Amino acid sequence: MAELVGNLLVAQSGGPTAVINASVAGVIVEAGKHPDAIEEIYGGLNGILGILNEELIDIQEELSTTIEGLKHTPAAALGTCRYKIDFKKKPDQAAKDMDRLFEVFEAHNIRYFFYAGGNDSQDTAHKLHEQAIARNYPLRVIGVPKTIDNDLPHTDHCPGYGSVIKYNATTVMEIAADVRSMATDSGSCCIVEVMGRSAGWIAAGTVLARRTPADAPHIILLPEIPFNQAAFLAKVQETIKELGYCIVVVGEGLKDAEGNEIAADKTRLDAFGHPVLSGAAERISEIISENSTTRTRTVKLGYAQRAAAHCASETDVEEAVACGHSAVKAAINGQSGYMVKIVRLADSPYRWTTGLQDIKDIANVEHLIPRDWISEDGFLPNEKFVKYASPLVDGELHLPMEGGLPKFVTLKKVVVEKKLPPRA
Amino acid sequence: MAELVGNLLVAQSGGPTAVINASVAGVIVEAGKHPDAIEEIYGGLNGILGILNEELIDIQEELSTTIEGLKHTPAAALGTCRYKIDFKKKPDQAAKDMDRLFEVFEAHNIRYFFYAGGNDSQDTAHKLHEQAIARNYPLRVIGVPKTIDNDLPHTDHCPGYGSVIKYNATTVMEIAADVRSMATDSGSCCIVEVMGRSAGWIAAGTVLARRTPADAPHIILLPEIPFNQAAFLAKVQETIKELGYCIVVVGEGLKDAEGNEIAADKTRLDAFGHPVLSGAAERISEIISENSTTRTRTVKLGYAQRAAAHCASETDVEEAVACGHSAVKAAINGQSGYMVKIVRLADSPYRWTTGLQDIKDIANVEHLIPRDWISEDGFLPNEKFVKYASPLVDGELHLPMEGGLPKFVTLKKVVVEKKLPPRA
Repeated sequence: MAELVGNLLVAQSGGPTAVINASVAGVIVEAGKHPDAIEEIYGGLNGILGILNEELIDIQEELSTTIEGLKHTPAAALGTCRYKIDFKKKPDQAAKDMDRLFEVFEAHNIRYFFYAGGNDSQDTAHKLHEQAIARNYPLRVIGVPKTIDNDLPHTDHCPGYGSVIKYNATTVMEIAADVRSMATDSGSCCIVEVMGRSAGWIAAGTVLARRTPADAPHIILLPEIPFNQAAFLAKVQETIKELGYCIVVVGEGLKDAEGNEIAADKTRLDAFGHPVLSGAAERISEIISENSTTRTRTVKLGYAQRAAAHCASETDVEEAVACGHSAVKAAINGQSGYMVKIVRLADSPYRWTTGLQDIKDIANVEHLIPRDWISEDGFLPNEKFVKYASPLVDGELHLPMEGGLPKFVTLKKVVVEKKLPPRA
Repeated sequence: MAELVGNLLVAQSGGPTAVINASVAGVIVEAGKHPDAIEEIYGGLNGILGILNEELIDIQEELSTTIEGLKHTPAAALGTCRYKIDFKKKPDQAAKDMDRLFEVFEAHNIRYFFYAGGNDSQDTAHKLHEQAIARNYPLRVIGVPKTIDNDLPHTDHCPGYGSVIKYNATTVMEIAADVRSMATDSGSCCIVEVMGRSAGWIAAGTVLARRTPADAPHIILLPEIPFNQAAFLAKVQETIKELGYCIVVVGEGLKDAEGNEIAADKTRLDAFGHPVLSGAAERISEIISENSTTRTRTVKLGYAQRAAAHCASETDVEEAVACGHSAVKAAINGQSGYMVKIVRLADSPYRWTTGLQDIKDIANVEHLIPRDWISEDGFLPNEKFVKYASPLVDGELHLPMEGGLPKFVTLKKVVVEKKLPPRA
């Protein structure tokens, strides 16, 4: 392959995770090993949106301890966005954006571009790769997988997923101990809402808290399985009769048989006449209350789950860093238009490596839990899922602490001088 | 004092914490050092309710590793209850219960009784102490403080409090990093609901996440300060204008100027015509949405916060254990009718010891945050609070793990043979 010398740009996109910064650290550290090809290392602020505004920072101005600290710092240190370059719905804007992105790349001699993100971000990376070829602009684009949702195809799993399920399963174990010890009290059913709008991977992951058949969670409501109210209520009562309490985990995107999210309760209107959007856990709680005397409590982990670096999986962090390394190595080897993927070599003891997947196979494809990984009644993932998920939560980080609280890093963000007029 | 020889009974009551088992471990370990006074060590299941049913277990049948493991196991290993012996509202039942309790004590030669709990539990302990004197039944009763709410008077703080605020402050730091990195996205205000119905100690504790003036939480809504909607909305917009995002922490018991909990929204009725009880965070989110274009997300930590052993404060665990030790030592020294309290000797470096407080001074007195520990506008605790709370979150536990998840202990619960007919 022809040698390509120039600058590197790395950016983050979509919802953050506990380990997306670890992938960026991986990119930066590996990039530093190839000074013959990579001259400057830039970070793009707020994903593609910041790049459109020519908002680049000089990573080489950051301390190496800061880069190392990114490995345990949650959220997106470079900032993120949900901006989509959409040639179908907004062709004019998309064409304009693309022109502008290549203007920015050219102005700063960007020859290596790494984008860490989920479905939409891989789609953006794919388009940049195609446009670079069409424009005859030498650029190597590699996608770095990231999503707590674990819904990217072809990769065994996504960096970010192991940490979110480690935290959620730990939380379910702790909540279950609490509710069990209060079983003489009236609050005997606790509903824990976790993220996951279409795919139930996050909700399913809490099954790891079950070490014995009596352990929580007793019911996991997955967005993939249409909510069957009668069967659910019967299962709650059966569990309470047997154990004195019941822990339910619900994915926020749980849907009824018609495909409507159950959290959108059209029978209740707010002051403006709009349907009240309670959370899925609140709605499940109401359904139990309306149909039984069981008292309920809810927990909604929300952003806490995807930012929980204090309970991150060491395996997840290692894999996230490795994805960053592999992305740079692939680009240095002349490859472009790929996403790094995690390839599982063995379940137990768990062994893995990284690989590359054509990025066009990734964009806009959603990977759901296979039906045969879920129990027949649909209320729990089965042993196939457990075999898959168990290794991903292994190992603990020990965060540096200050005064009893985590010490995260922030980037200095030394801005690269702009060379272009502002975005039109 | 006269030597008192007999059996020991320890029980737990009220909402569990991450460290209430540590106090029980402290009682058990200390009790084992006084075989001349304490013959058998029993645990009462589900607090006073189980004792009324003569449900005792033999602690000496438990492995010492299990007792040690209690120090990092959340919730109430003996089970708990919210049963109240209420001479005012239910005098007949209360008199009957008292007779029954002393029958159980006598049948099992209970001479040392330790009750770990909050306000109500200390009230029960106080009554047992008084009744023992009235009945001329030699019994030494010592209360062990426990409550995440931190609302017991006379003790500097309560075991359980340091851990809940360590977890909540950690969570707020992590959520803030996430929301800050998404500040170009529309979800720029996140409201985190924490426990605390009357006292705002728990909500206030999240202020420890603020290392710089720009850090979250930016607003803490305390149940002690009546909710001022206009001032609150102005502060949210001011924060978003300055920082691009805003993190709000709200105590679940936040009240309006009339003293009504804001979570009870009387303008919204469910299918049965009852007011919808959304959580305080959901209500705050609605108020922001109804009055601005700011998009909001909510987090409701619920039981997760009081059970979070994986993020417990080492200081809290040490103090909880010490309270157990001190309770037994006091009883062995002939004392009864006291609650162990934590006495602060110095702020920095933090030094503490335990003391005893007449238990009649504790029962049914609620300790709120002093007004002069809160900023003038009421939106943040000030440096007096920070000085008080900082040392309580210091130090980390490193839980034993199995397959990447915590390994908690459960008691074998070898039942002590019943000697009485069932409770009438």
